[in-house]
Amino acid sequence: MLSDNQHPDIFLVESYFKKLQQDICTGLEEKEKGAKFKSDKWERVEGGGGDTRVMEGGSIIEKGGVNFSHVHGPLPEKIANRLQLPIGLNFHATGTSLVIHPLHPLIPVIHMNVRYFQIENGVWWFGGGIDLTPAYVFPEDAVFFHQQLQAVCRPFGEGIYPEFKKNCDEYFYLKHRDETRGIGGLFFDFLKPGGIFSDAKTIFHFVQAVGNTFLPIYLDLISRNEQKIYTPEQKAFQLWRRGRYVEFNLLYDKGTSFGLDTGGRTESILMSLPPLTSWRYDFHPEQGSVEADTLQYLKPIDWLNLRLG
Amino acid sequence: MLSDNQHPDIFLVESYFKKLQQDICTGLEEKEKGAKFKSDKWERVEGGGGDTRVMEGGSIIEKGGVNFSHVHGPLPEKIANRLQLPIGLNFHATGTSLVIHPLHPLIPVIHMNVRYFQIENGVWWFGGGIDLTPAYVFPEDAVFFHQQLQAVCRPFGEGIYPEFKKNCDEYFYLKHRDETRGIGGLFFDFLKPGGIFSDAKTIFHFVQAVGNTFLPIYLDLISRNEQKIYTPEQKAFQLWRRGRYVEFNLLYDKGTSFGLDTGGRTESILMSLPPLTSWRYDFHPEQGSVEADTLQYLKPIDWLNLRLG
Repeated sequence: MLSDNQHPDIFLVESYFKKLQQDICTGLEEKEKGAKFKSDKWERVEGGGGDTRVMEGGSIIEKGGVNFSHVHGPLPEKIANRLQLPIGLNFHATGTSLVIHPLHPLIPVIHMNVRYFQIENGVWWFGGGIDLTPAYVFPEDAVFFHQQLQAVCRPFGEGIYPEFKKNCDEYFYLKHRDETRGIGGLFFDFLKPGGIFSDAKTIFHFVQAVGNTFLPIYLDLISRNEQKIYTPEQKAFQLWRRGRYVEFNLLYDKGTSFGLDTGGRTESILMSLPPLTSWRYDFHPEQGSVEADTLQYLKPIDWLNLRLG
Repeated sequence: MLSDNQHPDIFLVESYFKKLQQDICTGLEEKEKGAKFKSDKWERVEGGGGDTRVMEGGSIIEKGGVNFSHVHGPLPEKIANRLQLPIGLNFHATGTSLVIHPLHPLIPVIHMNVRYFQIENGVWWFGGGIDLTPAYVFPEDAVFFHQQLQAVCRPFGEGIYPEFKKNCDEYFYLKHRDETRGIGGLFFDFLKPGGIFSDAKTIFHFVQAVGNTFLPIYLDLISRNEQKIYTPEQKAFQLWRRGRYVEFNLLYDKGTSFGLDTGGRTESILMSLPPLTSWRYDFHPEQGSVEADTLQYLKPIDWLNLRLG
């Protein structure tokens, strides 16, 4: 898969990301038994485009999007400045990203994203991650999620899970609330040979392992919770928790602000926002309630060594 | 009211802002006939504090807040840097700000804010503004609103309304949507003698005129629309329009980002966020619908010279 100058082949990477999008949409639609993703193909004036697939009003997915894009052309000035590169160099960026807001308040929100960036001067890297934002944190689900992620990472080295887990806790953090967005997961960026990974091929394999792990993990998390009966109060708590999701994405998420700032496609970027959300002034769940317990879990937690009661 | 060094007297200013908060809460409660503002007094570790008054679930006000605050102490480092001042200088900042999210989708959201900032090195200024964000734009209401604001400004000079109206259009602009947040109003900052205004006394009078105009204008706007019957589709459109309000406040509003960034009280800052909000992927109202008409009005418009059909 490597070209002479050690680049991953952009078309091999793109074709994996495209297939991943298709497989995920198919897998989620099978679970939905009825609702379908609507495909919205778009083009970018400067080069490339994408396929935004969105489902709204499903029986499981209240609102969810699975985006694929491959854009190219001259490096936008803001990105060139940030990377301290001369402007005018050509680049390719391709990736698949998804956010699922479930209808059921006891099924967690999930976010996953795998991406590849390449500049004609020979600079390239992979980035991405997967993380979970439950409205209600169930420790056994959180432990399961992190066990699965550790299993995905382990073949690539023992140090990978702890490092990317730590990145994730640090990244998905709402400073003004002193809360994490959810229970974390993996987050990585600027993956290139020389750090944890020795070569491009291994990095691409790792990124594929992360992408491929989404569907089985999420289908399992759905199955664990979809039969539970929920109350209107639990639904209201979910809408309130979604407010924190919005706050994170609009105040802190670098992909969101940078995408909007560099003229990305607004609707594809903001498809991450939840369907229905509420803000209540200075709301605090009752002491000792399940809701109060959940808020206690919104900090970096070593889930793999958690002793479940 | 002027001390030797031409400062407005901070305690006179504070006492006006406090009375303004009280008058506004009383006036809105009279209109509500039942629901009351809940007062939440808070203190700031470094000095000063505030009184956040919030109403939720009123018959007219679905969620609204009227904040007063007076904070003081050493200038936070970020503010000192922004103003290119040495750190360690003492400051006072006091103001009253409000956001009202009405239950009725045909009553507009309103925002008003008057504030005063003073640093011990002799630097001081007033800032503030008032602006309207209707879910549905009714041109006759927008014209009325701007006529009232022009009347408030005129005694202070002919150039004031056009300048502060232009500031407002420029400030409340969602770049990623190429939309204004609403139909504008007035926005001003760093008001001090030497520009449009000759002296501190006149500036303070102007700021009071803006503050005092809120209640009669908003009560009129409520009366114009509260009896109209609305449909569930109109309520849904309101929730969708609130999404844009959230996007503006979290992505662009300098008061919000700066307040959160400098350790302001999160709940008082984010009391501006709406009660219930929705995001729908790539929603566009039907061509020719009233909803589509509203979106046409979300740009800078010379309301005073608009010819109403």
